[in-house]
Amino acid sequence: MEKILITGLNGFVAKHFLDYLEDNHIRAQVLGIDIQPACMYNGFKYIDFHYACIDLLQQKEIEKILFQFQPEYVLHLASYSSVAFSWKNPILSFQNNVNIFLNLVEVVREYSLKTRILSIGSSEEYGNVNEADIPLKETAGLNPLSPYAVARVSQEMLSSLYAKSYNQDIVMTRSFNHIGPGQSDVFVVSSFVRRILEAKMSGMKELQLPVGNIDIIRDFLDVRDVVSAYYKLLHKGKKGEIYNVCSGCAVRLSEIIMFISEALDIRVIPSVDDALVRPNDNMLIVGDNSKLCNDTDWHPHYCLKNSISDIIEYWKIKLN
Amino acid sequence: MEKILITGLNGFVAKHFLDYLEDNHIRAQVLGIDIQPACMYNGFKYIDFHYACIDLLQQKEIEKILFQFQPEYVLHLASYSSVAFSWKNPILSFQNNVNIFLNLVEVVREYSLKTRILSIGSSEEYGNVNEADIPLKETAGLNPLSPYAVARVSQEMLSSLYAKSYNQDIVMTRSFNHIGPGQSDVFVVSSFVRRILEAKMSGMKELQLPVGNIDIIRDFLDVRDVVSAYYKLLHKGKKGEIYNVCSGCAVRLSEIIMFISEALDIRVIPSVDDALVRPNDNMLIVGDNSKLCNDTDWHPHYCLKNSISDIIEYWKIKLN
Repeated sequence: MEKILITGLNGFVAKHFLDYLEDNHIRAQVLGIDIQPACMYNGFKYIDFHYACIDLLQQKEIEKILFQFQPEYVLHLASYSSVAFSWKNPILSFQNNVNIFLNLVEVVREYSLKTRILSIGSSEEYGNVNEADIPLKETAGLNPLSPYAVARVSQEMLSSLYAKSYNQDIVMTRSFNHIGPGQSDVFVVSSFVRRILEAKMSGMKELQLPVGNIDIIRDFLDVRDVVSAYYKLLHKGKKGEIYNVCSGCAVRLSEIIMFISEALDIRVIPSVDDALVRPNDNMLIVGDNSKLCNDTDWHPHYCLKNSISDIIEYWKIKLN
Repeated sequence: MEKILITGLNGFVAKHFLDYLEDNHIRAQVLGIDIQPACMYNGFKYIDFHYACIDLLQQKEIEKILFQFQPEYVLHLASYSSVAFSWKNPILSFQNNVNIFLNLVEVVREYSLKTRILSIGSSEEYGNVNEADIPLKETAGLNPLSPYAVARVSQEMLSSLYAKSYNQDIVMTRSFNHIGPGQSDVFVVSSFVRRILEAKMSGMKELQLPVGNIDIIRDFLDVRDVVSAYYKLLHKGKKGEIYNVCSGCAVRLSEIIMFISEALDIRVIPSVDDALVRPNDNMLIVGDNSKLCNDTDWHPHYCLKNSISDIIEYWKIKLN
């Protein structure tokens, strides 16, 4: 029975990772940790689930829990992953990305634990890219454009260093934009769905939607495909290697609005609100997932329209 | 009268920077800060010197001091700058490089202070380099090979970001190896001089000297040339730009031993002690200083033999 530690248990991705283990009848001993008390987690049929409340900035707490549990795998999801937040609070963003990661890998190193860590990075690390480099391979240059992106590059450099110099078993991702049911409306697609659905439910036929820059192009991957990639990378990823976790498909934010508008049969008229436009944002981010596919036999299963339809269903339940 | 804040006051470089101001009759109001109580600093003729004991990890303390003093220039020297230390204490090294820098730039941003910061980086950022790239220009790729080097790259990425996105006035260096009188014998050249001098003073004609890898090639710059570069960069460096601070000359560590041996007239037989060999060390680091020379009219004044001779004099006094 494999032993998996998941940090950032209360987050969007962790919940789907647990669902993935259950749906695939994976018998695992799972310890979920989070700085907040656990959300409701019970009724598991296949996994043996435990929970602990831990502040990853406190190294002593991590030491205790890792030493007791001795995980084979750590899925390190804990992160302040909002770019917008990082512009307002660069210090907190940095601490809750880089410093917590460093605390974690240091404990694994000090106790010589036989633990593989999946270090989650971000497509934001690429920064402003040349169109000629699209779709982005893992070999493309990094030019981070936000405090969050800098923190992710720092974490990745530390990961590479620990893998090379201390021979620590770390696999890295650069994960592109996630979408899926359950995501907070701090994130753009979930926010669009919620706001358009609320308009629809209130009987409106047309909505003026304040937006940021909706000409930007992104690579959205359904969270359920993200977690299957993470499970496969924990088991089949190559030590010290970096993997894009992405769909490989380019989608403009305005198209997403159009899909939602069609699915809900409501006219949406986007209007740009300067306060929602981020400084220095990337125009174009699309990844190449061939390394991930080749090394782990992973393939995505959700197309964008399926995802949006599931996100609409999620918000319908949530708003009722 | 210009106002200069110096962090890391008790360090090797700060002391020489104060000497530079005095030697050049620069009338400046200087506030030196350090986490330790101040070493003896008095008898200044040209500068109006003040001191405060500050922990840069405590943002409130930095806020207070910056807001009160309102410096035009910040020379940010505070750092845990030993690569060897960073291998043993990656977390402390990271905190006392990146986090303290971030605290500093955040205060300047929040209070919209009209302050230029000189962010000190390191040649270690380049990492393992191709011989074809020697001498290294600032455009060369970065491939950091130690926790210290990763911390310096992170600091530099944050500096670039703050300069570009927040329009903050930051100039960056990649400073190569320093040598000079007063440097701690934690650092290689000072350590060689001290040990060889001690052998000479005890009457030995020949010394078996335990060493690490002395085939590595470095670019050593006298600290007195370093501080003149820093002063010029504070005044003439271009905002958001990175400058190599280096001599441009390639010197093998074994040659340094030979110079010292000749100057002291004692035979030195180096013997490699594996415990002194660093994991993953760079073989070859030599920089190109033309950008610094062109933009600031800086030129180095100390040749290697002068520096070594002055370091020997320093240790003679210190050991007596």
